Amino acid sequence: MDTVTIGIITLSDRASRGEYEDRSGPEIKKYFSERIKNLIEWRYEVIPDERDKLRKILIELSDLETGLICTTGGTGPAPRDITPQVTEDVCDKILPGFGEEMRRVSLQFVPTAILSAQTAGIRNKSLIINLPGKPKAIAECLGAVYPAIPYCLDLIGAPRMEFTDKGNNAFRPPGK
Amino acid sequence: MDTVTIGIITLSDRASRGEYEDRSGPEIKKYFSERIKNLIEWRYEVIPDERDKLRKILIELSDLETGLICTTGGTGPAPRDITPQVTEDVCDKILPGFGEEMRRVSLQFVPTAILSAQTAGIRNKSLIINLPGKPKAIAECLGAVYPAIPYCLDLIGAPRMEFTDKGNNAFRPPGK
Amino acid sequence: MDTVTIGIITLSDRASRGEYEDRSGPEIKKYFSERIKNLIEWRYEVIPDERDKLRKILIELSDLETGLICTTGGTGPAPRDITPQVTEDVCDKILPGFGEEMRRVSLQFVPTAILSAQTAGIRNKSLIINLPGKPKAIAECLGAVYPAIPYCLDLIGAPRMEFTDKGNNAFRPPGK
Repeated sequence: MDTVTIGIITLSDRASRGEYEDRSGPEIKKYFSERIKNLIEWRYEVIPDERDKLRKILIELSDLETGLICTTGGTGPAPRDITPQVTEDVCDKILPGFGEEMRRVSLQFVPTAILSAQTAGIRNKSLIINLPGKPKAIAECLGAVYPAIPYCLDLIGAPRMEFTDKGNNAFRPPGK
Repeated sequence: MDTVTIGIITLSDRASRGEYEDRSGPEIKKYFSERIKNLIEWRYEVIPDERDKLRKILIELSDLETGLICTTGGTGPAPRDITPQVTEDVCDKILPGFGEEMRRVSLQFVPTAILSAQTAGIRNKSLIINLPGKPKAIAECLGAVYPAIPYCLDLIGAPRMEFTDKGNNAFRPPGK
Repeated sequence: MDTVTIGIITLSDRASRGEYEDRSGPEIKKYFSERIKNLIEWRYEVIPDERDKLRKILIELSDLETGLICTTGGTGPAPRDITPQVTEDVCDKILPGFGEEMRRVSLQFVPTAILSAQTAGIRNKSLIINLPGKPKAIAECLGAVYPAIPYCLDLIGAPRMEFTDKGNNAFRPPGK
Protein backbone atom coordinates (compact mmCIF):
# COMPACT_ATOMS: atom_id res chain seq x y z
CA MET A 1 0.00 0.00 0.00
CA ASP A 2 1.41 3.38 -1.05
CA THR A 3 1.65 6.30 1.32
CA VAL A 4 -0.90 8.92 0.28
CA THR A 5 -0.27 12.61 0.70
CA ILE A 6 -3.06 15.00 1.66
CA GLY A 7 -2.63 18.75 1.81
CA ILE A 8 -4.83 20.92 4.04
CA ILE A 9 -4.82 24.68 3.62
CA THR A 10 -6.84 26.69 6.11
CA LEU A 11 -7.60 30.21 4.92
CA SER A 12 -8.37 32.52 7.80
CA ASP A 13 -6.95 35.95 8.55
CA ARG A 14 -7.62 35.51 12.26
CA ALA A 15 -6.38 31.94 12.65
CA SER A 16 -3.22 32.81 10.71
CA ARG A 17 -2.51 35.60 13.24
CA GLY A 18 -3.03 33.14 16.09
CA GLU A 19 -6.24 34.85 17.29
CA TYR A 20 -7.97 31.50 17.46
CA GLU A 21 -7.13 27.92 16.82
CA ASP A 22 -8.05 26.41 13.48
CA ARG A 23 -10.68 23.73 14.01
CA SER A 24 -11.53 23.06 10.34
CA GLY A 25 -8.15 21.63 9.35
CA PRO A 26 -8.35 18.99 12.12
CA GLU A 27 -11.91 18.11 10.98
CA ILE A 28 -10.60 17.32 7.49
CA LYS A 29 -7.78 15.24 8.99
CA LYS A 30 -10.25 13.30 11.12
CA TYR A 31 -12.56 12.64 8.16
CA PHE A 32 -9.89 11.01 6.01
CA SER A 33 -8.04 9.29 8.89
CA GLU A 34 -11.18 7.34 9.69
CA ARG A 35 -11.76 6.24 6.09
CA ILE A 36 -8.33 5.72 4.51
CA LYS A 37 -6.23 2.69 5.41
CA ASN A 38 -2.95 3.90 3.85
CA LEU A 39 -0.28 5.70 5.79
CA ILE A 40 -1.16 9.39 5.26
CA GLU A 41 1.46 12.10 5.00
CA TRP A 42 -0.16 15.43 5.92
CA ARG A 43 0.88 18.83 4.61
CA TYR A 44 -0.90 21.45 6.64
CA GLU A 45 -0.79 25.24 6.36
CA VAL A 46 -2.79 28.07 7.95
CA ILE A 47 -2.63 31.22 5.84
CA PRO A 48 -4.43 34.59 5.60
CA ASP A 49 -7.05 35.13 2.86
CA GLU A 50 -4.48 36.33 0.36
CA ARG A 51 -4.52 35.57 -3.31
CA ASP A 52 -0.73 35.30 -3.81
CA LYS A 53 -0.13 33.17 -0.72
CA LEU A 54 -2.82 30.65 -1.68
CA ARG A 55 -1.69 30.56 -5.28
CA LYS A 56 1.90 29.86 -4.27
CA ILE A 57 1.00 27.05 -1.85
CA LEU A 58 -1.40 25.36 -4.27
CA ILE A 59 1.30 25.30 -6.94
CA GLU A 60 3.95 24.05 -4.50
CA LEU A 61 1.79 21.26 -3.10
CA SER A 62 0.77 20.20 -6.58
CA ASP A 63 4.41 20.21 -7.76
CA LEU A 64 5.21 17.94 -4.77
CA GLU A 65 2.57 15.48 -6.09
CA THR A 66 0.16 15.96 -3.21
CA GLY A 67 -2.70 13.79 -4.52
CA LEU A 68 -5.48 15.51 -2.63
CA ILE A 69 -5.45 19.15 -1.51
CA CYS A 70 -8.35 20.42 0.59
CA THR A 71 -8.78 24.10 1.29
CA THR A 72 -11.09 25.37 4.03
CA GLY A 73 -12.47 28.91 4.17
CA GLY A 74 -12.68 31.89 1.86
CA THR A 75 -15.48 30.62 -0.39
CA GLY A 76 -18.10 33.32 0.19
CA PRO A 77 -19.07 36.71 -1.30
CA ALA A 78 -17.00 38.88 1.08
CA PRO A 79 -14.21 40.87 -0.58
CA ARG A 80 -11.40 38.93 1.12
CA ASP A 81 -12.89 35.54 0.13
CA ILE A 82 -10.71 34.47 -2.79
CA THR A 83 -10.29 30.70 -2.52
CA PRO A 84 -12.45 29.45 -5.44
CA GLN A 85 -11.17 32.19 -7.76
CA VAL A 86 -7.53 31.25 -7.10
CA THR A 87 -8.39 27.55 -7.41
CA GLU A 88 -9.93 28.12 -10.85
CA ASP A 89 -6.89 30.09 -11.80
CA VAL A 90 -4.29 27.39 -10.96
CA CYS A 91 -6.27 24.37 -12.17
CA ASP A 92 -5.87 22.76 -15.60
CA LYS A 93 -9.44 21.51 -15.44
CA ILE A 94 -12.48 22.40 -13.32
CA LEU A 95 -14.87 19.72 -12.06
CA PRO A 96 -18.08 21.70 -11.46
CA GLY A 97 -19.94 18.68 -10.07
CA PHE A 98 -18.12 18.96 -6.74
CA GLY A 99 -19.31 22.50 -6.04
CA GLU A 100 -22.83 21.75 -7.26
CA GLU A 101 -23.19 18.71 -5.04
CA MET A 102 -21.62 20.31 -1.95
CA ARG A 103 -23.97 23.29 -2.27
CA ARG A 104 -26.96 21.01 -2.82
CA VAL A 105 -26.19 19.08 0.36
CA SER A 106 -25.37 22.22 2.38
CA LEU A 107 -28.72 23.71 1.35
CA GLN A 108 -30.41 21.05 3.44
CA PHE A 109 -28.79 22.66 6.48
CA VAL A 110 -28.72 26.37 5.67
CA PRO A 111 -30.32 28.51 2.91
CA THR A 112 -27.19 30.63 2.59
CA ALA A 113 -25.33 27.64 1.08
CA ILE A 114 -25.85 29.20 -2.36
CA LEU A 115 -23.44 31.98 -1.31
CA SER A 116 -20.48 29.60 -1.46
CA ALA A 117 -18.54 29.64 -4.73
CA GLN A 118 -16.63 26.50 -3.66
CA THR A 119 -15.34 24.42 -6.53
CA ALA A 120 -12.84 21.66 -7.31
CA GLY A 121 -10.35 21.01 -10.05
CA ILE A 122 -7.28 19.17 -11.24
CA ARG A 123 -3.77 20.55 -11.40
CA ASN A 124 -1.25 17.99 -12.69
CA LYS A 125 -1.73 14.95 -10.44
CA SER A 126 -3.55 16.81 -7.68
CA LEU A 127 -7.26 17.10 -6.96
CA ILE A 128 -7.98 20.43 -5.24
CA ILE A 129 -11.28 20.71 -3.34
CA ASN A 130 -12.65 23.86 -1.66
CA LEU A 131 -14.41 23.19 1.63
CA PRO A 132 -16.29 25.78 3.68
CA GLY A 133 -14.70 27.49 6.66
CA LYS A 134 -17.17 26.34 9.33
CA PRO A 135 -15.86 23.22 11.15
CA LYS A 136 -19.39 21.79 11.37
CA ALA A 137 -19.83 22.03 7.58
CA ILE A 138 -16.64 20.09 6.75
CA ALA A 139 -18.13 16.63 7.24
CA GLU A 140 -21.39 17.66 5.55
CA CYS A 141 -19.55 18.76 2.40
CA LEU A 142 -17.02 15.94 2.37
CA GLY A 143 -19.91 13.51 2.80
CA ALA A 144 -21.36 14.84 -0.45
CA VAL A 145 -18.23 14.21 -2.53
CA TYR A 146 -16.02 11.71 -0.67
CA PRO A 147 -17.41 8.64 -2.50
CA ALA A 148 -15.93 9.94 -5.78
CA ILE A 149 -12.54 11.12 -4.47
CA PRO A 150 -10.48 7.86 -4.50
CA TYR A 151 -11.48 6.97 -8.07
CA CYS A 152 -10.78 10.54 -9.17
CA LEU A 153 -7.26 10.19 -7.73
CA ASP A 154 -6.82 6.90 -9.65
CA LEU A 155 -7.79 8.65 -12.88
CA ILE A 156 -5.25 11.44 -12.49
CA GLY A 157 -2.42 9.08 -11.56
CA ALA A 158 -2.19 9.79 -7.81
CA PRO A 159 -1.41 6.96 -5.35
CA ARG A 160 -4.28 4.54 -4.76
CA MET A 161 -6.32 4.95 -1.57
CA GLU A 162 -7.44 1.82 0.25
CA PHE A 163 -10.46 1.97 2.52
CA THR A 164 -11.22 1.07 6.11
CA ASP A 165 -14.26 -1.14 6.51
CA LYS A 166 -16.40 1.00 8.70
CA GLY A 167 -19.25 2.75 6.86
CA ASN A 168 -17.09 3.41 3.85
CA ASN A 169 -19.07 4.40 0.77
CA ALA A 170 -16.21 5.24 -1.59
CA PHE A 171 -16.90 3.88 -5.04
CA ARG A 172 -14.76 2.38 -7.76
CA PRO A 173 -16.27 0.89 -10.91
CA PRO A 174 -16.21 -2.93 -10.78
CA GLY A 175 -12.77 -4.29 -11.71
CA LYS A 176 -10.93 -1.02 -10.96
CA MET B 1 -32.90 51.66 9.48
CA ASP B 2 -30.94 52.55 6.33
CA THR B 3 -32.59 53.18 3.00
CA VAL B 4 -31.82 50.28 0.69
CA THR B 5 -31.37 50.75 -3.04
CA ILE B 6 -32.57 48.15 -5.51
CA GLY B 7 -31.92 48.34 -9.23
CA ILE B 8 -34.22 46.65 -11.74
CA ILE B 9 -33.13 46.28 -15.35
CA THR B 10 -35.66 44.83 -17.77
CA LEU B 11 -34.08 43.55 -20.97
CA SER B 12 -36.58 43.38 -23.79
CA ASP B 13 -36.30 44.70 -27.32
CA ARG B 14 -40.06 45.03 -27.59
CA ALA B 15 -40.80 46.56 -24.20
CA SER B 16 -37.96 49.05 -24.72
CA ARG B 17 -39.66 50.19 -27.96
CA GLY B 18 -42.94 50.57 -26.10
CA GLU B 19 -44.61 47.65 -27.93
CA TYR B 20 -45.85 46.25 -24.66
CA GLU B 21 -45.68 47.14 -21.04
CA ASP B 22 -43.02 45.53 -18.90
CA ARG B 23 -44.68 43.30 -16.32
CA SER B 24 -41.54 41.61 -14.93
CA GLY B 25 -39.99 44.72 -13.41
CA PRO B 26 -43.14 45.40 -11.36
CA GLU B 27 -43.16 41.75 -10.20
CA ILE B 28 -39.65 42.20 -8.78
CA LYS B 29 -40.73 45.43 -7.08
CA LYS B 30 -43.74 43.70 -5.54
CA TYR B 31 -41.65 40.78 -4.27
CA PHE B 32 -39.21 42.94 -2.32
CA SER B 33 -41.76 45.55 -1.22
CA GLU B 34 -43.69 42.86 0.60
CA ARG B 35 -40.64 41.46 2.39
CA ILE B 36 -38.34 44.41 3.14
CA LYS B 37 -39.19 46.87 5.91
CA ASN B 38 -36.63 49.56 4.96
CA LEU B 39 -37.44 52.48 2.75
CA ILE B 40 -36.50 51.28 -0.73
CA GLU B 41 -35.08 53.55 -3.40
CA TRP B 42 -35.78 52.01 -6.80
CA ARG B 43 -33.66 52.44 -9.91
CA TYR B 44 -35.55 51.04 -12.85
CA GLU B 45 -34.57 50.82 -16.51
CA VAL B 46 -36.09 49.10 -19.55
CA ILE B 47 -33.48 48.51 -22.24
CA PRO B 48 -33.10 46.50 -25.45
CA ASP B 49 -31.09 43.24 -25.41
CA GLU B 50 -27.82 44.99 -26.15
CA ARG B 51 -24.49 44.09 -24.71
CA ASP B 52 -23.07 47.63 -24.41
CA LYS B 53 -26.22 49.14 -22.91
CA LEU B 54 -26.48 46.46 -20.22
CA ARG B 55 -22.79 46.66 -19.45
CA LYS B 56 -22.94 50.44 -19.02
CA ILE B 57 -25.97 50.37 -16.71
CA LEU B 58 -24.63 47.55 -14.55
CA ILE B 59 -21.40 49.48 -14.03
CA GLU B 60 -23.25 52.74 -13.33
CA LEU B 61 -25.64 51.19 -10.82
CA SER B 62 -22.80 49.42 -9.09
CA ASP B 63 -20.73 52.60 -8.94
CA LEU B 64 -23.78 54.29 -7.32
CA GLU B 65 -23.67 51.59 -4.58
CA THR B 66 -26.95 49.95 -5.57
CA GLY B 67 -26.85 47.01 -3.13
CA LEU B 68 -29.05 44.69 -5.15
CA ILE B 69 -29.43 44.76 -8.92
CA CYS B 70 -31.95 42.40 -10.52
CA THR B 71 -32.06 41.90 -14.26
CA THR B 72 -35.03 40.28 -15.99
CA GLY B 73 -34.88 38.76 -19.46
CA GLY B 74 -32.20 37.77 -21.93
CA THR B 75 -31.02 34.58 -20.20
CA GLY B 76 -31.77 32.02 -22.92
CA PRO B 77 -30.00 30.48 -25.94
CA ALA B 78 -31.31 32.95 -28.58
CA PRO B 79 -28.64 35.08 -30.25
CA ARG B 80 -29.87 38.35 -28.71
CA ASP B 81 -29.95 36.89 -25.17
CA ILE B 82 -26.80 38.31 -23.59
CA THR B 83 -27.63 39.04 -19.96
CA PRO B 84 -25.66 36.31 -18.13
CA GLN B 85 -22.64 36.77 -20.39
CA VAL B 86 -22.47 40.52 -19.67
CA THR B 87 -23.08 39.86 -15.97
CA GLU B 88 -20.11 37.47 -15.83
CA ASP B 89 -18.06 40.03 -17.63
CA VAL B 90 -18.67 42.92 -15.20
CA CYS B 91 -18.59 40.91 -11.96
CA ASP B 92 -15.54 40.54 -9.73
CA LYS B 93 -16.85 37.23 -8.46
CA ILE B 94 -19.48 34.77 -9.70
CA LEU B 95 -21.79 32.96 -7.27
CA PRO B 96 -22.84 29.88 -9.28
CA GLY B 97 -25.18 28.63 -6.55
CA PHE B 98 -27.82 31.22 -7.50
CA GLY B 99 -28.15 30.00 -11.08
CA GLU B 100 -28.05 26.35 -10.04
CA GLU B 101 -30.80 26.77 -7.48
CA MET B 102 -33.03 28.95 -9.69
CA ARG B 103 -32.80 26.40 -12.50
CA ARG B 104 -33.47 23.53 -10.09
CA VAL B 105 -36.64 25.20 -8.83
CA SER B 106 -37.77 26.29 -12.31
CA LEU B 107 -37.39 22.70 -13.52
CA GLN B 108 -40.30 21.78 -11.28
CA PHE B 109 -42.46 24.00 -13.49
CA VAL B 110 -41.00 23.61 -16.97
CA PRO B 111 -38.41 21.23 -18.51
CA THR B 112 -36.91 24.04 -20.58
CA ALA B 113 -35.55 25.64 -17.38
CA ILE B 114 -32.14 24.16 -18.25
CA LEU B 115 -31.98 26.57 -21.21
CA SER B 116 -31.51 29.55 -18.91
CA ALA B 117 -27.90 30.58 -18.34
CA GLN B 118 -28.97 32.92 -15.52
CA THR B 119 -26.29 33.59 -12.93
CA ALA B 120 -25.41 35.99 -10.12
CA GLY B 121 -22.29 37.75 -9.00
CA ILE B 122 -20.69 40.53 -7.03
CA ARG B 123 -19.37 43.79 -8.41
CA ASN B 124 -17.94 46.06 -5.68
CA LYS B 125 -20.76 46.36 -3.13
CA SER B 126 -23.52 45.18 -5.47
CA LEU B 127 -25.11 41.77 -5.83
CA ILE B 128 -26.32 41.28 -9.41
CA ILE B 129 -28.95 38.56 -9.99
CA ASN B 130 -30.32 37.45 -13.38
CA LEU B 131 -34.02 36.63 -13.34
CA PRO B 132 -35.99 35.15 -16.23
CA GLY B 133 -38.08 37.32 -18.52
CA LYS B 134 -41.46 35.69 -17.85
CA PRO B 135 -43.43 37.63 -15.18
CA LYS B 136 -44.80 34.37 -13.73
CA ALA B 137 -41.28 32.98 -13.25
CA ILE B 138 -40.02 35.97 -11.23
CA ALA B 139 -41.51 34.90 -7.91
CA GLU B 140 -40.55 31.25 -8.53
CA CYS B 141 -36.89 32.16 -9.06
CA LEU B 142 -36.72 34.78 -6.31
CA GLY B 143 -38.32 32.26 -3.96
CA ALA B 144 -35.37 29.96 -4.62
CA VAL B 145 -32.71 32.50 -3.65
CA TYR B 146 -34.35 35.26 -1.60
CA PRO B 147 -33.53 33.66 1.78
CA ALA B 148 -29.81 34.18 1.11
CA ILE B 149 -29.94 37.70 -0.35
CA PRO B 150 -29.97 39.89 2.79
CA TYR B 151 -27.01 38.08 4.39
CA CYS B 152 -25.13 38.26 1.10
CA LEU B 153 -25.65 42.04 1.10
CA ASP B 154 -24.30 42.19 4.69
CA LEU B 155 -21.16 40.33 3.62
CA ILE B 156 -20.38 42.69 0.76
CA GLY B 157 -20.95 45.83 2.85
CA ALA B 158 -24.31 46.94 1.42
CA PRO B 159 -26.96 48.51 3.69
CA ARG B 160 -28.71 46.05 6.02
CA MET B 161 -32.18 44.87 5.02
CA GLU B 162 -34.76 44.44 7.78
CA PHE B 163 -37.69 42.09 7.24
CA THR B 164 -41.43 42.33 7.44
CA ASP B 165 -43.03 39.63 9.59
CA LYS B 166 -45.28 37.97 7.09
CA GLY B 167 -43.95 34.63 5.80
CA ASN B 168 -40.43 35.92 5.69
CA ASN B 169 -37.84 33.19 5.36
CA ALA B 170 -34.70 35.30 4.91
CA PHE B 171 -31.85 33.84 6.92
CA ARG B 172 -28.99 35.34 8.88
CA PRO B 173 -26.66 33.15 10.97
CA PRO B 174 -27.45 33.51 14.70
CA GLY B 175 -25.92 36.67 16.15
CA LYS B 176 -25.55 38.41 12.77
CA MET C 1 -41.08 18.84 -42.47
CA ASP C 2 -37.43 19.89 -42.76
CA THR C 3 -34.59 17.41 -42.70
CA VAL C 4 -32.72 17.78 -39.42
CA THR C 5 -29.00 17.24 -39.17
CA ILE C 6 -27.45 15.62 -36.11
CA GLY C 7 -23.72 15.28 -35.58
CA ILE C 8 -22.24 12.54 -33.40
CA ILE C 9 -18.59 12.70 -32.37
CA THR C 10 -17.24 9.75 -30.43
CA LEU C 11 -14.03 10.53 -28.58
CA SER C 12 -12.04 7.40 -27.82
CA ASP C 13 -8.38 6.70 -28.43
CA ARG C 14 -9.04 2.96 -28.64
CA ALA C 15 -12.18 3.04 -30.79
CA SER C 16 -10.48 5.46 -33.19
CA ARG C 17 -7.63 2.94 -33.63
CA GLY C 18 -10.20 0.22 -34.30
CA GLU C 19 -9.43 -1.68 -31.07
CA TYR C 20 -13.11 -1.95 -30.32
CA GLU C 21 -16.33 -0.91 -31.90
CA ASP C 22 -17.97 2.31 -30.77
CA ARG C 23 -21.25 1.51 -29.06
CA SER C 24 -22.06 4.99 -27.73
CA GLY C 25 -22.52 6.68 -31.09
CA PRO C 26 -25.18 4.11 -32.11
CA GLU C 27 -26.94 4.63 -28.75
CA ILE C 28 -27.29 8.34 -29.51
CA LYS C 29 -28.58 7.52 -33.00
CA LYS C 30 -31.16 5.13 -31.56
CA TYR C 31 -32.33 7.66 -28.97
CA PHE C 32 -33.15 10.37 -31.50
CA SER C 33 -34.38 8.01 -34.25
CA GLU C 34 -37.11 6.79 -31.90
CA ARG C 35 -38.27 10.28 -30.96
CA ILE C 36 -37.82 12.49 -34.03
CA LYS C 37 -40.22 12.21 -36.95
CA ASN C 38 -38.17 14.26 -39.46
CA LEU C 39 -35.75 12.72 -41.89
CA ILE C 40 -32.42 12.83 -40.05
CA GLU C 41 -29.11 13.37 -41.77
CA TRP C 42 -26.36 11.93 -39.59
CA ARG C 43 -22.77 13.17 -39.45
CA TYR C 44 -20.74 10.68 -37.48
CA GLU C 45 -17.05 10.70 -36.57
CA VAL C 46 -14.89 8.59 -34.26
CA ILE C 47 -11.76 10.46 -33.20
CA PRO C 48 -8.99 10.15 -30.60
CA ASP C 49 -9.10 12.32 -27.45
CA GLU C 50 -7.21 15.15 -29.07
CA ARG C 51 -7.88 18.80 -28.53
CA ASP C 52 -7.14 20.00 -32.08
CA LYS C 53 -9.11 17.24 -33.81
CA LEU C 54 -12.21 17.86 -31.69
CA ARG C 55 -11.94 21.60 -32.09
CA LYS C 56 -11.69 21.31 -35.88
CA ILE C 57 -14.68 18.97 -36.21
CA LEU C 58 -16.90 21.02 -33.89
CA ILE C 59 -16.19 24.14 -35.93
CA GLU C 60 -16.74 22.32 -39.25
CA LEU C 61 -20.04 20.75 -38.18
CA SER C 62 -21.26 24.04 -36.80
CA ASP C 63 -20.28 25.87 -40.01
CA LEU C 64 -22.30 23.24 -41.91
CA GLU C 65 -25.35 24.23 -39.80
CA THR C 66 -25.58 20.92 -37.96
CA GLY C 67 -28.40 21.84 -35.54
CA LEU C 68 -27.50 19.34 -32.84
CA ILE C 69 -24.00 18.01 -32.17
CA CYS C 70 -23.59 15.32 -29.51
CA THR C 71 -20.15 14.30 -28.30
CA THR C 72 -19.59 11.10 -26.33
CA GLY C 73 -16.54 10.46 -24.14
CA GLY C 74 -13.67 12.49 -22.73
CA THR C 75 -15.60 14.27 -19.97
CA GLY C 76 -13.69 13.05 -16.90
CA PRO C 77 -10.65 14.09 -14.85
CA ALA C 78 -8.04 11.99 -16.71
CA PRO C 79 -5.35 13.99 -18.54
CA ARG C 80 -6.53 12.97 -22.03
CA ASP C 81 -10.17 13.90 -21.28
CA ILE C 82 -10.58 17.25 -23.04
CA THR C 83 -14.12 17.30 -24.45
CA PRO C 84 -15.84 19.86 -22.16
CA GLN C 85 -12.82 22.17 -22.22
CA VAL C 86 -12.78 22.26 -26.04
CA THR C 87 -16.57 22.66 -26.09
CA GLU C 88 -16.35 25.72 -23.83
CA ASP C 89 -13.64 27.07 -26.02
CA VAL C 90 -15.57 26.91 -29.33
CA CYS C 91 -18.99 27.95 -27.99
CA ASP C 92 -20.37 31.48 -28.11
CA LYS C 93 -22.53 30.76 -25.08
CA ILE C 94 -22.49 28.07 -22.39
CA LEU C 95 -25.73 26.58 -21.05
CA PRO C 96 -24.67 25.27 -17.63
CA GLY C 97 -28.10 23.79 -16.89
CA PHE C 98 -27.42 20.83 -19.19
CA GLY C 99 -24.32 19.67 -17.29
CA GLU C 100 -25.95 20.28 -13.91
CA GLU C 101 -29.01 18.25 -14.78
CA MET C 102 -27.12 15.40 -16.45
CA ARG C 103 -24.86 15.07 -13.41
CA ARG C 104 -27.82 15.22 -11.04
CA VAL C 105 -29.55 12.38 -12.87
CA SER C 106 -26.34 10.33 -13.26
CA LEU C 107 -25.76 10.62 -9.51
CA GLN C 108 -28.81 8.45 -8.98
CA PHE C 109 -26.88 5.65 -10.70
CA VAL C 110 -23.27 6.20 -9.66
CA PRO C 111 -21.58 8.48 -7.06
CA THR C 112 -18.70 9.22 -9.44
CA ALA C 113 -21.07 11.23 -11.66
CA ILE C 114 -19.63 14.41 -10.10
CA LEU C 115 -16.35 13.63 -11.89
CA SER C 116 -17.86 14.48 -15.28
CA ALA C 117 -17.26 18.04 -16.46
CA GLN C 118 -19.79 17.55 -19.29
CA THR C 119 -21.42 20.76 -20.48
CA ALA C 120 -23.42 22.17 -23.40
CA GLY C 121 -23.35 25.35 -25.39
CA ILE C 122 -24.28 27.20 -28.52
CA ARG C 123 -22.03 27.92 -31.50
CA ASN C 124 -23.82 29.82 -34.27
CA LYS C 125 -26.92 27.74 -35.01
CA SER C 126 -25.65 24.57 -33.36
CA LEU C 127 -26.35 23.16 -29.91
CA ILE C 128 -23.36 21.11 -28.71
CA ILE C 129 -23.99 18.61 -25.89
CA ASN C 130 -21.35 16.50 -24.13
CA LEU C 131 -22.52 13.00 -23.26
CA PRO C 132 -20.56 10.46 -21.23
CA GLY C 133 -18.53 7.71 -22.89
CA LYS C 134 -20.35 4.74 -21.36
CA PRO C 135 -23.05 3.38 -23.74
CA LYS C 136 -25.34 2.63 -20.80
CA ALA C 137 -25.16 6.24 -19.58
CA ILE C 138 -26.19 7.78 -22.93
CA ALA C 139 -29.93 7.26 -22.48
CA GLU C 140 -29.76 8.27 -18.81
CA CYS C 141 -28.15 11.60 -19.66
CA LEU C 142 -30.22 12.29 -22.76
CA GLY C 143 -33.33 11.51 -20.72
CA ALA C 144 -32.35 14.35 -18.39
CA VAL C 145 -32.11 16.99 -21.10
CA TYR C 146 -33.97 15.75 -24.19
CA PRO C 147 -37.27 17.51 -23.30
CA ALA C 148 -35.56 20.89 -23.73
CA ILE C 149 -33.55 20.15 -26.91
CA PRO C 150 -36.16 20.79 -29.67
CA TYR C 151 -37.22 24.17 -28.25
CA CYS C 152 -33.57 25.14 -27.81
CA LEU C 153 -33.02 24.39 -31.51
CA ASP C 154 -36.03 26.58 -32.38
CA LEU C 155 -34.54 29.45 -30.39
CA ILE C 156 -31.19 29.33 -32.17
CA GLY C 157 -32.74 29.11 -35.62
CA ALA C 158 -32.07 25.43 -36.41
CA PRO C 159 -34.65 23.36 -38.35
CA ARG C 160 -37.74 22.42 -36.35
CA MET C 161 -37.93 18.89 -34.94
CA GLU C 162 -41.28 17.12 -35.01
CA PHE C 163 -41.96 14.32 -32.56
CA THR C 164 -43.09 10.74 -32.77
CA ASP C 165 -46.04 9.91 -30.53
CA LYS C 166 -44.55 7.24 -28.38
CA GLY C 167 -43.67 8.43 -24.85
CA ASN C 168 -42.36 11.70 -26.16
CA ASN C 169 -41.85 14.28 -23.43
CA ALA C 170 -40.23 17.05 -25.47
CA PHE C 171 -41.65 20.42 -24.49
CA ARG C 172 -42.50 23.58 -26.38
CA PRO C 173 -44.27 26.50 -24.70
CA PRO C 174 -47.95 26.65 -25.76
CA GLY C 175 -48.33 28.26 -29.19
CA LYS C 176 -44.72 27.67 -30.23
